[in-house]
Amino acid sequence: MDNRRRFNSDKLEVFSSNVLQKLGIPEDDANITAKMLVNSDLRGVESHGVAHLSPFYVNWIKQGKVKIKPELKLTNNSSMSAIMDGDSGLGFVAGYHATLEAIERAKKFGAGFVSVKNSTHFGAAAYYSMMPLEHDMIGIAMTAGGRFMMAPGSNKRAGGLNPIAVAVPAYKRHPFVLDMSTSVVAYGKIEIAKRQGKTIPEGWVVDENSNFITDTPKINIGDNQWKGGMLPLGGLPETGGFKGFGLAVLVDIFCTILSGAALDTDMNHFFGAIRIDGFRPVKEFKQQMDQLIDSIESLPVLPGFEKIYAAGGPENKYMQERKKNGIPLDEEVIQSLKELSEELNITFDIDV
Amino acid sequence: MDNRRRFNSDKLEVFSSNVLQKLGIPEDDANITAKMLVNSDLRGVESHGVAHLSPFYVNWIKQGKVKIKPELKLTNNSSMSAIMDGDSGLGFVAGYHATLEAIERAKKFGAGFVSVKNSTHFGAAAYYSMMPLEHDMIGIAMTAGGRFMMAPGSNKRAGGLNPIAVAVPAYKRHPFVLDMSTSVVAYGKIEIAKRQGKTIPEGWVVDENSNFITDTPKINIGDNQWKGGMLPLGGLPETGGFKGFGLAVLVDIFCTILSGAALDTDMNHFFGAIRIDGFRPVKEFKQQMDQLIDSIESLPVLPGFEKIYAAGGPENKYMQERKKNGIPLDEEVIQSLKELSEELNITFDIDV
Repeated sequence: MDNRRRFNSDKLEVFSSNVLQKLGIPEDDANITAKMLVNSDLRGVESHGVAHLSPFYVNWIKQGKVKIKPELKLTNNSSMSAIMDGDSGLGFVAGYHATLEAIERAKKFGAGFVSVKNSTHFGAAAYYSMMPLEHDMIGIAMTAGGRFMMAPGSNKRAGGLNPIAVAVPAYKRHPFVLDMSTSVVAYGKIEIAKRQGKTIPEGWVVDENSNFITDTPKINIGDNQWKGGMLPLGGLPETGGFKGFGLAVLVDIFCTILSGAALDTDMNHFFGAIRIDGFRPVKEFKQQMDQLIDSIESLPVLPGFEKIYAAGGPENKYMQERKKNGIPLDEEVIQSLKELSEELNITFDIDV
Repeated sequence: MDNRRRFNSDKLEVFSSNVLQKLGIPEDDANITAKMLVNSDLRGVESHGVAHLSPFYVNWIKQGKVKIKPELKLTNNSSMSAIMDGDSGLGFVAGYHATLEAIERAKKFGAGFVSVKNSTHFGAAAYYSMMPLEHDMIGIAMTAGGRFMMAPGSNKRAGGLNPIAVAVPAYKRHPFVLDMSTSVVAYGKIEIAKRQGKTIPEGWVVDENSNFITDTPKINIGDNQWKGGMLPLGGLPETGGFKGFGLAVLVDIFCTILSGAALDTDMNHFFGAIRIDGFRPVKEFKQQMDQLIDSIESLPVLPGFEKIYAAGGPENKYMQERKKNGIPLDEEVIQSLKELSEELNITFDIDV
């Protein structure tokens, strides 16, 4: 069981939005951002939740790295696709509006795609990929970011961690939501192990000679001078590392090159929505998704595993439980929120 | 150097087409199929080339598993997307026509997608993903097939090897062509090691207790009674195996569920084409693709590596060399073609 203190998700959302508004973010934009941060915590994806509010977004706004009132510019190049310029505002805001645009295009033409440049960190990709679900569409979200990946066969970093998310609706079961970095693991898992003084498994990080490093004090992924890096999904070349690296490059193409951003920029995104009834009746499709999910989730398990889930299953389970019982937070995170509360004079009344 | 006997690719294509025509396949369909088989050999992807002509396609036609004159049926559900019924004909034929349909839709609307059911083995996915390139489009091809993948955390097979191919055009450089099974390696690599009496690296195949097997005589992937299986891209759960498995399931969704096939069927496909000028001017895009490819292909290499390639680079190099010098074939493959020549009374005049 999780023994951490728990907080009401609605109140946490209001608090986060108030923090952003106090810093000058317009109300709608602050609400969108707060909703997505808390949604990550609800889904158990704590690496992308309110833990980031103070060190990432609040800091970047204060430093002027994130523009408070960006002017999003949409360039409409075909009925089906468009480019958006995020104008260095919060990535959440650009991502949200770009996804809405993709959904509108899909309503009219069957599919819609928007590639976004000049954005900033947009949180968890899953949220955007799930926005089309209520419209009976398949959702896609990608972002180029975190140039920490070693190219297979090289001693240099050459790829971003570049997550890909795809969400597909089911009927009575949870939606299928695959949200994966194209590296072996997300950066957050290494940071957590480092913080807790734990080692990491072989196959996550290598030094410049392609030797595995498991000792976290020796790892400094975030430091650009540090010569090691994270391995792509698949690991070393002989176990498919070229595939993970290829996927990372693909995300760069869809986010950075399609949007017309410079090659050395990060934080460009790609969003897509595809209507299911462009292929077959929605209800039939969703019922078959239920069958697929049931077939996976009734598989026998190996010792040490409780249950096999289809993608999105564990997050859905977290969501049910945390909506009811509140979101557990690390003391370190609670402290960072309390400091924001004092600094900005916002009531921190978010206990369950 | 490759010391095997070499064969002229054009003549090999004519020969392969003649074989199929003798078995009753209509001329156009035989030509398409032969072109794709030889294209795989030209690109160095010998696991999907003329080596398969006799044991796969000729055999299946003789056994009645592949229909000689299928009636492809297209169900047009939106301007942008459609479903095709392959009527159990050669997968190459359904795949070729479905891709043409996707391209036609993309010409009109910016993107086009076709999901195909009731098909058969369609060879290498790369070919279909590359068809949109000459129209300045990004191409996508997937196929559900080969239920040999162990679900992470389970002792049961639950996923297909399910390749995904995406091709993106460049300006003066080779196109980016990522064609990857969602397993650690393609099935063919294990078969080749088995045939040559070699071991395989740890991380490719596990037994029912999730222990690695490296001894190829102990491996019988093709046998449904055999209880081991191939690992998904990422390998075991702790190195990201859930991601590869998630990608495999995603391919099932796009190929099998979107097309309306039964969940337990294999050999359903998905094809897509997306116009680049729906986002930005084609020439600018392609020139930036050149930059991306150059930046990858000029990376320093670790000992044991000659050069780092962007996806599609090695295949492009094979293509140049083999078009000039001919396609090298294993004696076993030459023998199988000679037998077809004798059996069907077709001249085997395909030396360079």
